[in-house]
This record gives sequence, structure tokens and C-alpha cells, in this order.
Amino acid sequence: MSDLRAPEHQVAGHRAAPDKLGPLVDGAGLFYKPLQALDRGEQELAFYTAFSAHPDVPPRIRDAFFPRFHGTRLLPTAASPGESHPHLILDDLLKGLAAPSVTDIKIGACTWPPRAPEPYVAKCLAKDRGSTSVLLGFRVSGVMVSDPSGAVWRPDRSELKGTDIPGVRRMLRRYVSSAGGDGGGEDCALAAAVYGGEGGVLAQLRELKAWFEVQTLFHFYSASILLSYDANAVTAPGGAPRVKLVDFAHVVESEGVIDHNFLGGLCSLIKFIDDIVSSDKAPPAQS
Amino acid sequence: MSDLRAPEHQVAGHRAAPDKLGPLVDGAGLFYKPLQALDRGEQELAFYTAFSAHPDVPPRIRDAFFPRFHGTRLLPTAASPGESHPHLILDDLLKGLAAPSVTDIKIGACTWPPRAPEPYVAKCLAKDRGSTSVLLGFRVSGVMVSDPSGAVWRPDRSELKGTDIPGVRRMLRRYVSSAGGDGGGEDCALAAAVYGGEGGVLAQLRELKAWFEVQTLFHFYSASILLSYDANAVTAPGGAPRVKLVDFAHVVESEGVIDHNFLGGLCSLIKFIDDIVSSDKAPPAQS
Repeated sequence: MSDLRAPEHQVAGHRAAPDKLGPLVDGAGLFYKPLQALDRGEQELAFYTAFSAHPDVPPRIRDAFFPRFHGTRLLPTAASPGESHPHLILDDLLKGLAAPSVTDIKIGACTWPPRAPEPYVAKCLAKDRGSTSVLLGFRVSGVMVSDPSGAVWRPDRSELKGTDIPGVRRMLRRYVSSAGGDGGGEDCALAAAVYGGEGGVLAQLRELKAWFEVQTLFHFYSASILLSYDANAVTAPGGAPRVKLVDFAHVVESEGVIDHNFLGGLCSLIKFIDDIVSSDKAPPAQS
Repeated sequence: MSDLRAPEHQVAGHRAAPDKLGPLVDGAGLFYKPLQALDRGEQELAFYTAFSAHPDVPPRIRDAFFPRFHGTRLLPTAASPGESHPHLILDDLLKGLAAPSVTDIKIGACTWPPRAPEPYVAKCLAKDRGSTSVLLGFRVSGVMVSDPSGAVWRPDRSELKGTDIPGVRRMLRRYVSSAGGDGGGEDCALAAAVYGGEGGVLAQLRELKAWFEVQTLFHFYSASILLSYDANAVTAPGGAPRVKLVDFAHVVESEGVIDHNFLGGLCSLIKFIDDIVSSDKAPPAQS
């Protein structure tokens, strides 16, 4: 266990620090996520347990779009020597990406489970209204763009927080542009390779959408879609971008109906990205 | 104009009375809707004006799913002799239905335009959370079921208000059941004819959905889908059920993105109705 370390390429969520719990990776393909406080950790564990064994989840959906769940493990906490904390053991979704470009997109206009307690609803609603969630059906919670040269662009959280719709468009354009680094542009040089094509992000999102049109098992409040690709390899065979769902602390069982909130946001994301690919193909506007 | 009268088969919204403004019909195919108070009437008029002339609205969508707009007319008000009030002139959507069965389904988990003033948002949010809107992505605002025998079942508003998800399911089953009247059951005898088939409600809703997946013109907050059919004619050729959008006082222009809120609710309605048709086809549960 001595080889556990904080992941280098985390773009959203709590980060590990000497005095703080945060996720760890073992470098061999596993990701250790500390169970969150309150009942969130228990809820996320309950989701992974139920989801992993659910006979009505198509294996293809589970394998393609969710991190595999390998149980839990107690790990010592650096902050409190002698104490330990339970962690979920999951696939490391960014394993093997030499020049990782990653974005965390929180899906849904509404991030609060309908039967959540009042102060939590109010807090989430304020964030949903203060971000693009209500207007757009999703918000960007984190992004980093790597360049094969090694340059990295990673706006900080305060920058993401105030982002409006044009700002999200710029971010998702920059996410597929060749120039990393702070002076990076929006040439969308990788749009076709990352978003388009047979194994691209859009094709994967459409497959996920088809499942959300019929699944009445879970409602994924406040979950994210994590997009990632290797800037060194995305145009090569086998370098297909990855599309995964993460963050299930607020998933609830369905009451026999589809997750219209997640599905609406997912459809919005698909159209939004499709517009970026299309505008990239169109001849440049006359000036 | 002496032949104007209150429509007999209105299931939701304000009703005309000697001392109150309400919609009128002329019996020849036109429906007169009084412009609503505050700026809602003006907003609905602005929507109809913009929508009717918009070059990016496919004519097929406009003709199939929206009441035609014929301008406005000042009509004398019974409540205040000598005064007149502007009315929208629209198609009478229930024209020619001898035994009309009608349901008004308000679409979307969220019925408040994101940039609406605060007290209005709070009022809508309370209604959305207190009804099935947040959980289900839609709520039933009105329903009447006619029987060829002349019997009619029309629950009153207080009955609709407290409806939960199983209650909505019972209503949408009863909407396609043969027995009207208060002792009516849920035999779903008309489910295949009304909901299923080539020209049925599901096929029409799916066509509408395909448009909502790409249209970035308008966001239809608080709009309804009005379903109607003639219980005397729905199994005969030409008796196809009607699917129309109504109530556009809270429509806003899009900001270049799809109406994920309406689309999510519409997808939920499609799955919900599809489940009714499928369960109707399945062999009866063993008892």
C-alpha cells in the first residue's frame, strides 16, 4: 500500500492533502475513493453494491460507462495516525493516459434528490441557478487540457464557477483544441477525433442516452460524466476517448419512471457538442 | 359574434362565467382566448406571432402540433358592459369531437422560466415539488373521459392536485378505458387505438420529441400537451387522437440550447404511456 498516492489529474471533487482525505491511486489501475461524510459515502457504497449486481443493468452499459467496483478497503489516514477510513475501490478511469485531457460535467438541471431535506435542497438549488445547470441542463465542474508538448491548461474552481453558456462553449471547444497552456486557443483541431466518429464522445453519449430513455432503476442526481482522452494517442487506433459516469452519492432508486432530469441534461450536452463539431466543419464566417 | 359561448369540454385553465373572462368558441372552429393579466397575455401573443412566422420552424411541426394562430380580436366583456378585452384567435382543438376525451398534461419538471422574478419562481417551485412535476417530469392538469353512451368522468381540480405517480398512472389508464362515468374502471380497452399504432399518441409524441432534440428556438416553460380523441370515432378511420401544445404565456427565447426541461418531461411521458400500452398487452398477472 506504500505506492498509493494522490492522482495527478483530478479535475473536480475533494483532493487528498497531508491533512485531508482525498482519493488515491495505486498506479496499477485502481482508484481509492474515501467514503464521504454524512450518509453520502454509505449511499454511494449502496449504489455501487446494488448496481454491480443488478440483473436489469445491461452488461454492456455497466462495462462501457461505469467504473468497475472492487469492494471497499480501510486505509490509514495521514491526518489521524492510527486511525483508518473506509474507501471504495474503483477502476482508475485515467489509467494509462500519458497526456490526459479530462473534463467533469455534472449532468441535470436539478442536482437535488426530490425527497432530500430542505436545507440541502436550498443549497443545491442556489448552485443550480447560479451556474449553467438550470439553463443548460449541465455544468462543467472541472477541466484540464494537455498538449503533447506537456503544456497543461487547468482553470481553477473560481473560474469555472462563474461560467455562463458562452463560457461553457469556449471550454468544450478548448477541450478539443491542440494548444494547451495558458495561451491556448480554440482551433478545435481534435474535435472530429474526440467528439466525432464511430467511437467518439458523441457516439458513446448517444448509446448512453438510449439506455436512459428506458431505464427506470436509478435517478442519478448530481452525478457527472467524466470525459477523458490522451492527447498523445487520440488520433491513433485504440486511442478512443473515454466516457464514464462518476459520483453517485445522491443516486436514488427510481419510482418506476425514467430519470428525465439526467436524460434532459444528457440530450442538451449531445446537442451542444454536436453544434461544436458542426460549426467546426462549416466554412469560417465572413468577417 | 352572438354565437360565441364558453367551451363545454375545457379541462384546465380559467373558465368563462358571467362575471369572469374565459375562453370562448364560435362552434365553427375558432377558439377565443382572453389575453391573460400581467404581461402573460402579451407574452403569449408575442410567442404566437414569432412562432407563426419563424422560418426555422418546420411547417409539419407547426401544423401537426400547434393550434393555428389567426390574430387577435377585441370582444365585449360580459362582466363590464361597454368594455372590451383582447383575445387570441386560435383553432378550436376539440372541434368536431362528439364524445371528447381530453387530458391536459403540463410538461417539464420545472415550470418557471429561469430568469423569472423571485416570488413567481418560489410559487411555481412549490407547485412543482407538491405535484408530480419534479418526480415525473410532468403533471396532469385536467382530464375528462367520455363514453359513447354519454357518460363523462371529470375529476375536479382538488382531486388532481394531490395526485401521486400511481394516481397519474391510473388517470392515464382510465383515459383510454371504455367505461366513462364515475364508476368507470381501467380496462384500457382503447389503449392500443389511442396510444398505440401508426397515428397514435406515442407515434405523434415521438415525432415531437425528435424536434425537441434539435430545436434551439424556444423554451416552453409551463406549456401543456393537450391530448384529445372522440370516443365515438377513435377506432374508425380518420379518428386518430390529437396531440397539441397549448399555453405559451411562459415561453422564452432559447439561448442557443435545447429545451432540456421540456424534452426530459416529454421522454418521461413517452415511457410512461409506453408502459401502459405494454402492460395492457401482457397477460394478466396471476392472482
